[in-house]
Amino acid sequence: MLTADQIAAMVNARIHGDPGKAISGVSSFDDAGSTDLTFAVDHSFFSRLDETKAGIILVPNDAPAVSGITLLYSDNPKLAFFQVVAHLMPAEPLKEFIHPSAVIADDCVIGDGTRIEAHVSIGQGCTIGSHVHIMANTVIGKQCRIDDSCRISPNVTLVDKTRIGRQSIIHPNCVIGSDGFGFVQDGYAHAKLIHTGYVHIGACCEIGAGNTIDRGTLGITHIGNGVKTDNQVHIAHNVKIGDNTLVVAQVGIAGSTTIGKNVIIAGKAGISGHLDIGDGAIVGPYAGVVGNVSPGDIVSGIPHMPHKIWLKVSRIIPRLPSLRTRLLSLEKRIKKLESNRTEQP
Amino acid sequence: MLTADQIAAMVNARIHGDPGKAISGVSSFDDAGSTDLTFAVDHSFFSRLDETKAGIILVPNDAPAVSGITLLYSDNPKLAFFQVVAHLMPAEPLKEFIHPSAVIADDCVIGDGTRIEAHVSIGQGCTIGSHVHIMANTVIGKQCRIDDSCRISPNVTLVDKTRIGRQSIIHPNCVIGSDGFGFVQDGYAHAKLIHTGYVHIGACCEIGAGNTIDRGTLGITHIGNGVKTDNQVHIAHNVKIGDNTLVVAQVGIAGSTTIGKNVIIAGKAGISGHLDIGDGAIVGPYAGVVGNVSPGDIVSGIPHMPHKIWLKVSRIIPRLPSLRTRLLSLEKRIKKLESNRTEQP
Amino acid sequence: MLTADQIAAMVNARIHGDPGKAISGVSSFDDAGSTDLTFAVDHSFFSRLDETKAGIILVPNDAPAVSGITLLYSDNPKLAFFQVVAHLMPAEPLKEFIHPSAVIADDCVIGDGTRIEAHVSIGQGCTIGSHVHIMANTVIGKQCRIDDSCRISPNVTLVDKTRIGRQSIIHPNCVIGSDGFGFVQDGYAHAKLIHTGYVHIGACCEIGAGNTIDRGTLGITHIGNGVKTDNQVHIAHNVKIGDNTLVVAQVGIAGSTTIGKNVIIAGKAGISGHLDIGDGAIVGPYAGVVGNVSPGDIVSGIPHMPHKIWLKVSRIIPRLPSLRTRLLSLEKRIKKLESNRTEQP
Repeated sequence: MLTADQIAAMVNARIHGDPGKAISGVSSFDDAGSTDLTFAVDHSFFSRLDETKAGIILVPNDAPAVSGITLLYSDNPKLAFFQVVAHLMPAEPLKEFIHPSAVIADDCVIGDGTRIEAHVSIGQGCTIGSHVHIMANTVIGKQCRIDDSCRISPNVTLVDKTRIGRQSIIHPNCVIGSDGFGFVQDGYAHAKLIHTGYVHIGACCEIGAGNTIDRGTLGITHIGNGVKTDNQVHIAHNVKIGDNTLVVAQVGIAGSTTIGKNVIIAGKAGISGHLDIGDGAIVGPYAGVVGNVSPGDIVSGIPHMPHKIWLKVSRIIPRLPSLRTRLLSLEKRIKKLESNRTEQP
Repeated sequence: MLTADQIAAMVNARIHGDPGKAISGVSSFDDAGSTDLTFAVDHSFFSRLDETKAGIILVPNDAPAVSGITLLYSDNPKLAFFQVVAHLMPAEPLKEFIHPSAVIADDCVIGDGTRIEAHVSIGQGCTIGSHVHIMANTVIGKQCRIDDSCRISPNVTLVDKTRIGRQSIIHPNCVIGSDGFGFVQDGYAHAKLIHTGYVHIGACCEIGAGNTIDRGTLGITHIGNGVKTDNQVHIAHNVKIGDNTLVVAQVGIAGSTTIGKNVIIAGKAGISGHLDIGDGAIVGPYAGVVGNVSPGDIVSGIPHMPHKIWLKVSRIIPRLPSLRTRLLSLEKRIKKLESNRTEQP
Repeated sequence: MLTADQIAAMVNARIHGDPGKAISGVSSFDDAGSTDLTFAVDHSFFSRLDETKAGIILVPNDAPAVSGITLLYSDNPKLAFFQVVAHLMPAEPLKEFIHPSAVIADDCVIGDGTRIEAHVSIGQGCTIGSHVHIMANTVIGKQCRIDDSCRISPNVTLVDKTRIGRQSIIHPNCVIGSDGFGFVQDGYAHAKLIHTGYVHIGACCEIGAGNTIDRGTLGITHIGNGVKTDNQVHIAHNVKIGDNTLVVAQVGIAGSTTIGKNVIIAGKAGISGHLDIGDGAIVGPYAGVVGNVSPGDIVSGIPHMPHKIWLKVSRIIPRLPSLRTRLLSLEKRIKKLESNRTEQP
């Protein structure tokens, strides 16, 4: 049990209501019960704060007070809420262990407190840091380096020479370091380019389930620190992604494109090869980006255009049939005016 | 060998032609030989029923009779055809077996007749039903529940607490229960939301190869009974999908969206987050759905619009250059008319 | 070390500059150092041949000569460059070996010089050729046939009866031979079609990471010789793809479609089912192909249209708001002209 008082101290919040009110669990706004903590960040919730059964609600500083309800005012109520979740449901501590079925090359260096589950394979010359969790059935090639406190989920494939910075999470069934789609025409056949590069993933990244990240053809495919990718993202050879950029599900980024820092690429967007997407840019969902995007620009559409224009365009597209009809009608009316004019003496 | 008579009795069909005609195999309309059964459901086949070499053809009740050809009239000839396929090529019965290389936590409960192949890992607290087939190299986390007669294909990852209803099939290399793409901004960095939810998949589902289905952040990602997903579908955290809905390949459904029953989502469509797609709705291929869809509505396009409008719009889009030219011409003609008017006394 | 002379002889190039100039490595144009070979195929590099620090540059025959720089003129400088890469960094020879943890059915036939890594499973009745490399944690079903010199990467699933021609590479986490998305409506439920077909992949193919290729429902899904697919490509049941066709990342091809030879399908394109895409056709990125494409045609857009028209259309789409405004203005002006005419005596 945690009281409103205790939570307020933990997350630096201000109490409205009963400081002794206690909760034992957490839940969403609509599913919460009387012993749950919940949160309401969206203004749409403020008018219905009395509708949740939650014992305590974390709200932003501009939320209204409601008598009879215990509220905790916070600068970042969502962050505060998940800090309480982490307190109530702490992750099990990782126990050092190497499952006897794991096949690990003799010359690998493995740090303290690292856990390697069943049916893992690790190739020659790998360096695995401390407190790393390599989950079942993952395959790690030769000369990979995985820094401290990473989690590599089940059924992941890390190809030779992949490097992963500390505290990063690779979600299940990812492929990191596969050969890029690099061929050179030799008559009608496509001769394979030997790939000698590798993938470098920074610290504190999350790579979503089923991602594929290709190694550099020559040189490096580089994912910066704090980058988070959602599921089924494809990142081609020699792409560079800056720190803290977010890439949402099913995005594809073609070869040799450079994405800046703090960029957001929304779901299902595609970005063509050899482009520059500037720091802080936002690419909308389903967008097809075929040219450079300047820092801070927001783009949408296929092909991409400024988002403000896309908003107008997307309202006009369904009205194209009516616009066409109006154009046809204008043509008739003009013809009439013209013929009328000709008839005039 | 099966005679027309025997098949007619098996699938409740009416014979035209030779009741003693026998087949030993099945094939498609164009590849069939004289000892094959085939079927023709599409009207385009009716005029060329004499072109297949098949011994017997299953047809719908409104198909024409052709002399010299043995036809079986059925209410649902495609269903009937595949019932005969299942009769001729019965699945091998599943033999109870646990491969010695499988690593299964001591406290797991495993039902009768269940088969677990090589290099499988099953975590603590799992309950596996009867006649379940867990194929090679699949990883099952802690506290999962898999009901009777399921098939979990190779290289699948089921994350902790995943539940799968009876008779469901999970195709190879799926990830069920991965963390959602849930972060909260903390300065420029993105703090991870602890995920405490799980995925519930109903009975009689098929989840296509390479799907990724995220667990609920808090609460459940819920896939109803009889839902079928094609390959490379992405379903985000806290999505709900109603019974018997079909989701075609490479569709992405963003977080907290609710899809009704008997919905069809065609290939490569994307559905944004926090939306409601009503029962029986149809979403066209390549559509980008950015708002709610009412029950029974058919929508297409990016952004989505009523399918009937999209049909018109999609015919106009390639004619935009000519419409623009006509608009420019009108402008000139009007200018002329206007200047002419001004010149008039 | 290789001298310009030696390289010229190896790749049949003509030397400009110092025949004794030697390199020991390879690199990209901008990253190269003085002991690296690089190449410049793109005309944009010709004006800055003096900017790379590379010791030797491979260039096409129409590149300018620059004094003080050693150039090697070649008919295909990119191909030549990667031939030198292959010479400098030869692949390690494959050593015959079967890891003791591999589980291989007794009746499998395995050729000479084949290497099978840890945690592999191979089902009954498989035939594996010579010099095949089956990497860790890959699962091969029953009655598969893998011809000589193939590489099957880690965490791949080959379903029963899959056939792969000689010298083909299957990249990590692919699924080949999964059941297609084939159901028949039975009331509201969707009855599963028994799949009896399989996948045939030709010789000298590369199948990208995370691909899913479904078996034929009845009959074969056929991938021709020399076909290369990028990552996360989906190929449905009964698709046929002709020789040397290229399929870029995240493309989806629906059931029973036939793609010709020497076709290029760009990234994220979708192709609907039961279509014919002719030899040598090109499908642009993000395209949605909903009808047949003739041999040699180039198409783009959703829905697809001739690429030349799409280039015009894509320039007009962002100007739709202004075109609409101009149309509205025309309507007003015509109204004025009309009313003026009516007022005239």
